[in-house]
Amino acid sequence: MLERFLVPERDRVYVTVDKMRHATIEIFEKCGQSPADAALSAEVLMTSDLRGCESHGVSNQLRVYVQMYGDREINPTPNVRVTRETDVTANLDGDEGLGLHVLPKAMELAIEKAEKHGMGAVTVHNSRHIGMLAYHSMLPLKHDMIGLTTSAGNPLSMAPTFAGEKMFATNPWAWAAPARNEAPFVFDIATTQVAGNKLRLAERIGAPMDPAWVADSQGTPIMEEGPLPADYMILPFGGTREQGSHKGYGFAATCEILSTILSGMGPGFLLPTKPRTIMGHYVQAIKIDGFTDPEQFKDDMDRFLSGLRNTRPAPGHDRVVYAGLPEAEEVEIRQRDGIPYHREVIEWFESIKAELGLEFELL
Amino acid sequence: MLERFLVPERDRVYVTVDKMRHATIEIFEKCGQSPADAALSAEVLMTSDLRGCESHGVSNQLRVYVQMYGDREINPTPNVRVTRETDVTANLDGDEGLGLHVLPKAMELAIEKAEKHGMGAVTVHNSRHIGMLAYHSMLPLKHDMIGLTTSAGNPLSMAPTFAGEKMFATNPWAWAAPARNEAPFVFDIATTQVAGNKLRLAERIGAPMDPAWVADSQGTPIMEEGPLPADYMILPFGGTREQGSHKGYGFAATCEILSTILSGMGPGFLLPTKPRTIMGHYVQAIKIDGFTDPEQFKDDMDRFLSGLRNTRPAPGHDRVVYAGLPEAEEVEIRQRDGIPYHREVIEWFESIKAELGLEFELL
Repeated sequence: MLERFLVPERDRVYVTVDKMRHATIEIFEKCGQSPADAALSAEVLMTSDLRGCESHGVSNQLRVYVQMYGDREINPTPNVRVTRETDVTANLDGDEGLGLHVLPKAMELAIEKAEKHGMGAVTVHNSRHIGMLAYHSMLPLKHDMIGLTTSAGNPLSMAPTFAGEKMFATNPWAWAAPARNEAPFVFDIATTQVAGNKLRLAERIGAPMDPAWVADSQGTPIMEEGPLPADYMILPFGGTREQGSHKGYGFAATCEILSTILSGMGPGFLLPTKPRTIMGHYVQAIKIDGFTDPEQFKDDMDRFLSGLRNTRPAPGHDRVVYAGLPEAEEVEIRQRDGIPYHREVIEWFESIKAELGLEFELL
Repeated sequence: MLERFLVPERDRVYVTVDKMRHATIEIFEKCGQSPADAALSAEVLMTSDLRGCESHGVSNQLRVYVQMYGDREINPTPNVRVTRETDVTANLDGDEGLGLHVLPKAMELAIEKAEKHGMGAVTVHNSRHIGMLAYHSMLPLKHDMIGLTTSAGNPLSMAPTFAGEKMFATNPWAWAAPARNEAPFVFDIATTQVAGNKLRLAERIGAPMDPAWVADSQGTPIMEEGPLPADYMILPFGGTREQGSHKGYGFAATCEILSTILSGMGPGFLLPTKPRTIMGHYVQAIKIDGFTDPEQFKDDMDRFLSGLRNTRPAPGHDRVVYAGLPEAEEVEIRQRDGIPYHREVIEWFESIKAELGLEFELL
């Protein structure tokens, strides 16, 4: 993550992962989730916070979920069911349940199919936010499988290349692949220049926007560094056409096709805007053994990832990293030291504790 | 394609697709390919030229292939065989054959598996260049399937984010999805800022480089517009870290994992550099019927693609397009008017005709 997205030192409050997990489970249970679903939902958020991906942890997301449960925009006890199925594919009706606990079940089904046949893919329609995609894509790793997750829907935030209207959500992708001794490859990105949650995080900590991160209300890319304007559209990654924004746009469109159209909902920009965040998802598990010897694959992944890690850096840089390495390092640090939250986040937990009559202790 | 990559009007020589196809088939047959493989190889190149993707058509590629056949770096009559197989997966030994005619067979196998089971994926190792990826990804379209192609290997051209060494080829991806009345979605991109073949094309026509397209020989991004330096590395798409080059790097790494590591060759940067262009590939076919009604899918794709086409443009732009639309329009124009080649390309055809004792007539 870029420096600017880190919580400033003076605003940090450290909380152990166990205490924050416990608090989060209490909150999800109070929202009506079953104990098992609450534990799973909390695990997705804690995995984000441990990996240093606080944009997708409890800081931003939990209050949104609580509000949506309050507004009855999420079903706390969804009846998730298969609407179509083959040997290696399935489509699930998410029954308006939170993707945090619905999508792991979809991925487990994909893994089960991949175990039998070599590959499995599952779409989910009529679902809600899934949190950090990497969580879901990492589930196949321990089965010696490669994982893929992508997700789309409302609300819209991204303008396509040359467009003056928002037509996509942040339409993220995450791929994960196992290694033997190296930290696994885990690549999780928005197809926007910057994740929507990171913009909200930056607003909280007062970080400036870079040129070509967002367009103004008409769609013209803002090419000066500065504060986030009141009315804006996020650009596809690349920013401008010259710098390849058509690539971000294309991956966003592909995500839309797999997540909302293949799952049978139709494109996100035609979905109703109430309830917020109607989402569709696509997950896939690829069994390495269907193509090559998994032991050789993991050795080759070690050679690949250590090769990248040991690449000579360009002048002014300490090292080259690969996707998943800094996150794995962060997990070790945060398990030891606790997770640094913005004090404003701790204040929210205290207020929601009082409001909902909960009992957790964070500090 | 950006304006700057078009052949300048004064240098254009128009050739009909039939005459150029015929010439190309003659050349491939002279290189030792069977008539069927030569016809298929020519079809891949002509599809590129018709779609306006001349970076991957006869202009750049054919002379490289001819030289490689001359140097015995490509096997003109490969014995392509399955080395591992499950219901929905397979790995093929490409036997050093040209990917142009080897990969369509891999994709046909993936389609056959998808027809039976809902999905199919095939890796190929020990292969050579596959031309324009879109050709292969479009093969599943007429079967009401989504297609995916990705390919990696030698030679290296891309430096990862913050790196001072080349560690990847251009590691491209192509996704294709069918529609009913709209031109299909066909998204085909390099994970570099600019395709290697486009840099060679730009050198030929004297077009300048944009800022952050390439890094100097140490890995520092060149942030001024200007001519291509003698010694350079291509940056991942995004260009700089601030503009998201870690996303280009991550998709390049994912491509490498699927193409070279999953196919059992190990990472491209550890492959021997002689013979040039040892490549691995990954193709996947996704049967829409495994997830949702294909008729509804195609109607939804029409609503999706026409929605994008009709998005209000940003100030200064005529229209919004989607991946595959300008290419489909170009096909109509070029089938009518012929394909505009640079006169230098025509000169090469005349010289190779004399050298190899061929009989084709281009004009």
